Amino acid sequence: MATEEADSKNLKRYLSRGNVVIERVEPEIDGGRFRAKAITGDEFEVSADILRDGPALLQAVLRFRGPGSRGWSESFMSHLGNDRWTGSFRPNEVGVWRYTIEAWTDHFGSWRRDMFKRVEAEQNVDLELEEGALLLEAHLKAVPVKKRAILQGAIETIRKRPRGKRAAGATDPRVAAALDERVAEVMAAHHMRTNSTMYAPVLELTVDPERARFGAWYEFFPRSTGNAREHGTFQTAAKHLSYVADLGFDVVYLPPIHPIGTTYRKGKNNSMTPERGDVGSPWAIGSKDGGHKDVHPDLGTIEDFDAFVAEADRLGIDVALDYAIQCSPDHPWVTEHPEWFHHRPDGSIKHAENPPKRYQDIVPIDFDTEDREGLWLELKGVLEHWISHGVKVFRVDNPHTKAFPFWEWVIGELKGEHPELIFLSEAFTRPKVMRQLAKLGFTQSYTYFTWRNARWEIEEYLTELTRSEMRHYFRPNFFVNTPDILHEYLQRGGPAAFKVRLVLAALLSPSYGVYSGFEFFENVPVAEGSEEYLDSEKYELRHRRIGGSANLIPFVRRINEIRRENPPLARSAGLTFHSTDKDNLIAFSKTAEGSPPVLAVVNLNPFQWEEGTLTLDLGALGVEDGAGYSLTDLVTGDAYVWTGASNYIRLDPFQEPAHIFRVERA
Amino acid sequence: MATEEADSKNLKRYLSRGNVVIERVEPEIDGGRFRAKAITGDEFEVSADILRDGPALLQAVLRFRGPGSRGWSESFMSHLGNDRWTGSFRPNEVGVWRYTIEAWTDHFGSWRRDMFKRVEAEQNVDLELEEGALLLEAHLKAVPVKKRAILQGAIETIRKRPRGKRAAGATDPRVAAALDERVAEVMAAHHMRTNSTMYAPVLELTVDPERARFGAWYEFFPRSTGNAREHGTFQTAAKHLSYVADLGFDVVYLPPIHPIGTTYRKGKNNSMTPERGDVGSPWAIGSKDGGHKDVHPDLGTIEDFDAFVAEADRLGIDVALDYAIQCSPDHPWVTEHPEWFHHRPDGSIKHAENPPKRYQDIVPIDFDTEDREGLWLELKGVLEHWISHGVKVFRVDNPHTKAFPFWEWVIGELKGEHPELIFLSEAFTRPKVMRQLAKLGFTQSYTYFTWRNARWEIEEYLTELTRSEMRHYFRPNFFVNTPDILHEYLQRGGPAAFKVRLVLAALLSPSYGVYSGFEFFENVPVAEGSEEYLDSEKYELRHRRIGGSANLIPFVRRINEIRRENPPLARSAGLTFHSTDKDNLIAFSKTAEGSPPVLAVVNLNPFQWEEGTLTLDLGALGVEDGAGYSLTDLVTGDAYVWTGASNYIRLDPFQEPAHIFRVERA
Repeated sequence: MATEEADSKNLKRYLSRGNVVIERVEPEIDGGRFRAKAITGDEFEVSADILRDGPALLQAVLRFRGPGSRGWSESFMSHLGNDRWTGSFRPNEVGVWRYTIEAWTDHFGSWRRDMFKRVEAEQNVDLELEEGALLLEAHLKAVPVKKRAILQGAIETIRKRPRGKRAAGATDPRVAAALDERVAEVMAAHHMRTNSTMYAPVLELTVDPERARFGAWYEFFPRSTGNAREHGTFQTAAKHLSYVADLGFDVVYLPPIHPIGTTYRKGKNNSMTPERGDVGSPWAIGSKDGGHKDVHPDLGTIEDFDAFVAEADRLGIDVALDYAIQCSPDHPWVTEHPEWFHHRPDGSIKHAENPPKRYQDIVPIDFDTEDREGLWLELKGVLEHWISHGVKVFRVDNPHTKAFPFWEWVIGELKGEHPELIFLSEAFTRPKVMRQLAKLGFTQSYTYFTWRNARWEIEEYLTELTRSEMRHYFRPNFFVNTPDILHEYLQRGGPAAFKVRLVLAALLSPSYGVYSGFEFFENVPVAEGSEEYLDSEKYELRHRRIGGSANLIPFVRRINEIRRENPPLARSAGLTFHSTDKDNLIAFSKTAEGSPPVLAVVNLNPFQWEEGTLTLDLGALGVEDGAGYSLTDLVTGDAYVWTGASNYIRLDPFQEPAHIFRVERA
Repeated sequence: MATEEADSKNLKRYLSRGNVVIERVEPEIDGGRFRAKAITGDEFEVSADILRDGPALLQAVLRFRGPGSRGWSESFMSHLGNDRWTGSFRPNEVGVWRYTIEAWTDHFGSWRRDMFKRVEAEQNVDLELEEGALLLEAHLKAVPVKKRAILQGAIETIRKRPRGKRAAGATDPRVAAALDERVAEVMAAHHMRTNSTMYAPVLELTVDPERARFGAWYEFFPRSTGNAREHGTFQTAAKHLSYVADLGFDVVYLPPIHPIGTTYRKGKNNSMTPERGDVGSPWAIGSKDGGHKDVHPDLGTIEDFDAFVAEADRLGIDVALDYAIQCSPDHPWVTEHPEWFHHRPDGSIKHAENPPKRYQDIVPIDFDTEDREGLWLELKGVLEHWISHGVKVFRVDNPHTKAFPFWEWVIGELKGEHPELIFLSEAFTRPKVMRQLAKLGFTQSYTYFTWRNARWEIEEYLTELTRSEMRHYFRPNFFVNTPDILHEYLQRGGPAAFKVRLVLAALLSPSYGVYSGFEFFENVPVAEGSEEYLDSEKYELRHRRIGGSANLIPFVRRINEIRRENPPLARSAGLTFHSTDKDNLIAFSKTAEGSPPVLAVVNLNPFQWEEGTLTLDLGALGVEDGAGYSLTDLVTGDAYVWTGASNYIRLDPFQEPAHIFRVERA
């Protein structure tokens, strides 16, 4: 009996199911477990397999709603062929959007399609016409009042008995009325959704501000902006901002600005034996002067910081703070919340290590602490503190060594309140861990770009970033260098290497970054085979003299101008690699609707000139076969007119190692 | 306040989440919406991405349970690299199995890994040793009593104060005890699962009998087994079974055996004007003599059918019935349940059509009927009726024109009761519809094989079937011909074409089928450009004389023997295509653990000999570089010894168009 009841319940469940199947929705990250990402104002495209049994035609809509909206909006999807459908909407507000799909059988459209075939075969269609009239009649109540007359007129004509000699096929006025385009349009727009299928998961989408995708970042240490040998302050740093703005950067990122511990403080060049006056690493956060919510007294006061943010704001620059969840042994938390740290059997607090390496100046947080709730709330409080001081962008230090659930929670909570926030994940680790962090909510991510220097490596990596499922949730930020990463290519390649890497980063990725000193060709490692800088700013002040001619300043400025003037460079989509017959010549273009494409050709060999033949994918550039097209070099101003796909290229690193062309109709 | 409560609830949800992430589980069809398929006794492999933050090591188990079992069994998974893990189990019972994954941090394993590094760096490890002892102590209660002594001994040694001169590094007895292999083994097998992550979806797996994967099918019309011009019966058909068994077939498939309608009955060669005595199409089911639960009176009684099934059983042959949900206008349902059919505006019942084509002898079922429940239960009843008469295999006619939810329900319900049932989907339609039917529960499917004749087509199609996600749920059954499909290749290619297609079907697919007449080289189409047979058995009796020499009988028999004698041919996995320098020469091998590989080389051109060089993937054949290997031609008995990957091949269609080799160590 119980079994029969269960059987009957199971039967009813299947009986009520729609005939239409909706599956393989894209984007849908891990079955809807994670949100896709989009930018406000951009078109967001959704596709799916939509099918049913038999030959009937279907209709489908994409349903979507914004963060503030209670009701659903809809846009019709269209059939691409092979049972694949696509639709889109344009989210006009930051925050979490929702979307799903509804599909149903297009009875009238199917009837109409068959009618054309019958009429062409000159069959008697008297009964089929009445079927059509009945279909139209059944739909009257679903059609807006002012459009009903169109259907009513058709029904009337269809049902008029033909007098005298019968008009044949399409000339039969009844047939003409039944197949009338206007009728078809009304029915297409207002077809009843009998037995429709709603895609069960409601999928979510994080809609971010434009800055989440497009921005040029500049990293500098405020303490290095002082005069001569003085410790810089927020005031001197604020003055430095006009330099950064003049170079065309959109975001300044500051390493930690908090009090620095003294216990086990590192000396210059990471020395274990600091000298008097050594400033220590800003990542050794916390001292008697405070912790993550405080500013280093030598940098000034919180009011000085507020003034710095205000000055950045005036210049149109966002301030990005470093969010590094780790402490110096002198951090107030160590005494106030010893339970948040790992302890050794002798009761001492464990310092950071990567066996056999030991980092005595840092104590890591124990995310498995019994007081997880207290820890998480305090860590969230730190971010809220800086948000209240106008910070909207956080560069998160080593998120891959902190518990995943924490990131999902804290980013979700904060972006719920402040959807414009941007979190950049500084994780250089295994591919799946990097992807996981992006899925959990990080807005952007550092990448392997620094270590992708050969043409095939760059092409393969960019193809993964822009063509695989990653494009829906992982936004790259290509840094050319960082205080930790001075790649051998820059160490050895001279000024041309710096130009090459800048062009690649700035043009291949809508978000890219430069750590200060890059523009002065700083290239000396602390040791052979190391990627660390000699006299690294992580452990000492570094005063740079702006000026002189041996720098990349005009080039950086021009590149940032080119980025701002050419919309294709603001997007990840629209990237195409073109073929060349030389491994050292890489060529790629970016396109965006309504703007001329940008084509770059770069000689990856900084040591000598390279010549070869470039074979363009003209279709990707929107150039018709046989048509001429003009190219303007956006750096030198030189102009060319080309015809056909193949062209000779010669690039000399001692002149310009790259062409950056705007491509236009000749 | 309400918001604060919600916030706090949200926080608790994340706080309790495990640190380990499990995702990208394979197989997992559409996020677990559909079941994967496996065969009883086979190893079933499951893989997943498993990762967590930081450098800690992990452990993972595959959890699984059979249809009758209340508890879970487990098997450890192993790390393949790049955060991908794999595990397996061997389902030993047909029915629905369940599986999921659990993973946790391997604290002891991580500690041990770091310990090796510390010892190597000759660090003081006094405190780390005590950490290890504490870890072992904490695990004592998780370890079976008889293994505890191993850990207790280690703890004791670790805590012994070193006397006198300290032993260094690995020679320190405390270190040796801590890193002891036996300790590691006990800990690996019984590690506590603190804060473990259970993969949330419990995935399902349909475990089918061997026959679901491996079988040679033979289709014949019982009515054609009579003498001379007489209508055959179940009795004459039962006698015919010994012929089928002698050919080595495993399944006989009978077109519908039910009463045939007379209204609009089709004459010979699909004529609209039948002659007296024309037998009609068996797919025009139903007459005054009954419907889907009845047998055609000319074939005999239900007792005769039972005797037929018993004879098949005696010969080790399964009987497959045709399940065609459609009716002749004379079917009892038409009067008893007119609401199950489509009606036209004049009240008449609609016949089948594919505009502008009309099929007046068939009326299709309206799956959108108001009485869906009554219809579905009756349709299920039909299957139950034949199951009660010993039928375990159903070849389902055109399932793609019936509602998807019906199939999922009816197959699910029936296989719930009778997990050994096999449903073969006869859908020749769009790829995604064919896949959908397989996902909904069909055990096997007809395929596009008949239309894949060129080498690249065959390689591409088989790669899709055996390498894409389809391999988890779509089991192909390669028919060389059907009463509806006589491909041009067979029409024109002569006897060699029949051999070629037989070898391809029988060796490329574990399940394959032949429609009777194939072995007699029947190849005349009803018209130029048609795939229909002339004098098709669908509309008339067809008496075939077995005997004479112009037939394929010995070859078919040998091929079926080869299939039974060589386990690699019973599986879809283990297929490799090898390269040749001629488009007409296709080469492939199949392997299975514990058996010699089978290698086939086929000349696809039935009109002339072809010679060329075959370049084998020796690794796929398990042959070591430079080693000789012997090949025995399983058809001719010829033997060869080869060395190296490249070998000359010459195949003459007028001798043998194919080599079928068993490959063994020379």
